Amino acid sequence: MEILSLSEIASLAERLPAFDTEMADAARARQDSLTKPPGSLGRLEELAIFMAGWRGTARPDIVKAQAVIFAGNHGICAQGVNPYPQEVTAQMVMNFEHGGASINQLCRANGADLSVVALDLDRPTADFTQGPAMSEAETLDAINRGIAAVDPEADVLILGEMGIGNSTIAAALASALFGATPADWVGPGTGSNAEGIQRKIAAIEAGLKRHGGASAMATLAALGGREQAAICGAVLAARAHRIPVILDGFICTAAAATLYAADPRLLDHCLVGHVSPEPGHRRLLDAMGKKAVLEFDMRLGEGSGAALALGILRSALECHNGMATFGEAGVSEA
Amino acid sequence: MEILSLSEIASLAERLPAFDTEMADAARARQDSLTKPPGSLGRLEELAIFMAGWRGTARPDIVKAQAVIFAGNHGICAQGVNPYPQEVTAQMVMNFEHGGASINQLCRANGADLSVVALDLDRPTADFTQGPAMSEAETLDAINRGIAAVDPEADVLILGEMGIGNSTIAAALASALFGATPADWVGPGTGSNAEGIQRKIAAIEAGLKRHGGASAMATLAALGGREQAAICGAVLAARAHRIPVILDGFICTAAAATLYAADPRLLDHCLVGHVSPEPGHRRLLDAMGKKAVLEFDMRLGEGSGAALALGILRSALECHNGMATFGEAGVSEA
Repeated sequence: MEILSLSEIASLAERLPAFDTEMADAARARQDSLTKPPGSLGRLEELAIFMAGWRGTARPDIVKAQAVIFAGNHGICAQGVNPYPQEVTAQMVMNFEHGGASINQLCRANGADLSVVALDLDRPTADFTQGPAMSEAETLDAINRGIAAVDPEADVLILGEMGIGNSTIAAALASALFGATPADWVGPGTGSNAEGIQRKIAAIEAGLKRHGGASAMATLAALGGREQAAICGAVLAARAHRIPVILDGFICTAAAATLYAADPRLLDHCLVGHVSPEPGHRRLLDAMGKKAVLEFDMRLGEGSGAALALGILRSALECHNGMATFGEAGVSEA
Repeated sequence: MEILSLSEIASLAERLPAFDTEMADAARARQDSLTKPPGSLGRLEELAIFMAGWRGTARPDIVKAQAVIFAGNHGICAQGVNPYPQEVTAQMVMNFEHGGASINQLCRANGADLSVVALDLDRPTADFTQGPAMSEAETLDAINRGIAAVDPEADVLILGEMGIGNSTIAAALASALFGATPADWVGPGTGSNAEGIQRKIAAIEAGLKRHGGASAMATLAALGGREQAAICGAVLAARAHRIPVILDGFICTAAAATLYAADPRLLDHCLVGHVSPEPGHRRLLDAMGKKAVLEFDMRLGEGSGAALALGILRSALECHNGMATFGEAGVSEA
């Protein structure tokens, strides 16, 4: 799969695989036969049925879980939108590679293979208050690197990001695509104080003045960044292979939300692992009609909330595949 | 540990181990040194600090997780409070022993060793509308069997229950100990319809008329059951060994809540794994000032929500113990 122009993306929803309702129905029938009151596993049952429909089998399993973190740097940092220095992006990539970050522990604990894709960290995108963050060519390059990162053999894909300044990118994308004011989408991110938050809002207002009203994918180029574009590519590649995706927090979700703005169906195979206290995240989930798997006050990024949700998904499938039916166990029904 | 009279239980809070604030503070300091914005792992940080304080070490680990299901039968079933026949309790115990139930899969997925303690299933407690469900001797026997079931080497204890009719027991205990009307505590349980719910309410009203106003432990005897008493014993034994407990849903929590009613400190080492849609559960958590780890619309019992929360606890400790500090990783601070 390779994307040759931003304008073709909106039309992909017609061509990519759809939810297999027949296999989902078969999974639901199995759930109703298992030794428990019907529906009593709650959202674990929903997750098993979701996996069945997207994997195209009544008994979906997770043999291989892939986690990918995309990292990028952002010209918008020139506007003083983040309390950490920009070199932290590369330092954290090293930390991921050496196994010292939260996501390393969460992938080990929940059984995911982690890879990190650093996207031209020494060449930040442009400051969107001065011009478009990326050209169409740069955006396509990042999308296709996101596509290339997906393992077609994976049963589920966890997506995360790292990029100093990218909570401002997320709020800018959300504001441009879903309306409301920049202040409604901005939060403390990694730890901005009230002045820092005002700088974030001012930067986004300037960006919207310059780039507002564009199409979803043109907005991704103008206000986004390389890791945002790569996340979009990975979401599309996963769909092509019928691999369900677990998105992470506000920044990851806002990146993927550009696809939703192009065509809502493009995110039908995506779960959201958790809802962050970053105020824009819940607003964004509401706008897309998505309910997160977990709510745990996590606001770290890196895919951390998505990796935690993977453990829940594994439990859901263990119950789905491993439980006895009433008939098999000789248990009387109601 | 052996309990010789119900009246001694309220005084145990003074003698049993307390939360180690020094080790909890050391764990908090470690969390603040790890490569993430302070506080950004949200409730995972709180869980690690909770474990540190109860295990009495700044770097708590889970080597051995024990799960115990206590099963009992209830004379109150004579009042038509459950749509399933009472033999399902024993059938489900067989299902647990053969590995076919939800809890078997959830223990395997989340790394807990499961044992099942069937408490005189062929000898149901008395119908509490006619007299006390259990004598003091029967109650003490069940408490001490709960104590005996706890492995002193465990790092965490998951508690669950099975007993046809025991959502009525839970609502009766909660109503007697925390006030409000029986109707406020009663829900569909395994699947009662409106008529079944009315029968549950009527049975509890009769029980309260007969046994209301007693002390917490006398209420456990009069309105409870063997698995409820055994859960109380296991909670106390765990506390004696500084083993944190994960309680399950409404029925398990209501059993342990009799200890809370005797002295609230007796449940300080207990997490609640999930909040069930059974309406009494949230009311009970609010009454005890407890916040559940997960909210997943599960209403199965067996320890299922507690076992799911174990996976979250494991992830919390993997982050706590495995992450690099800013200094170790060479990452710049804000």
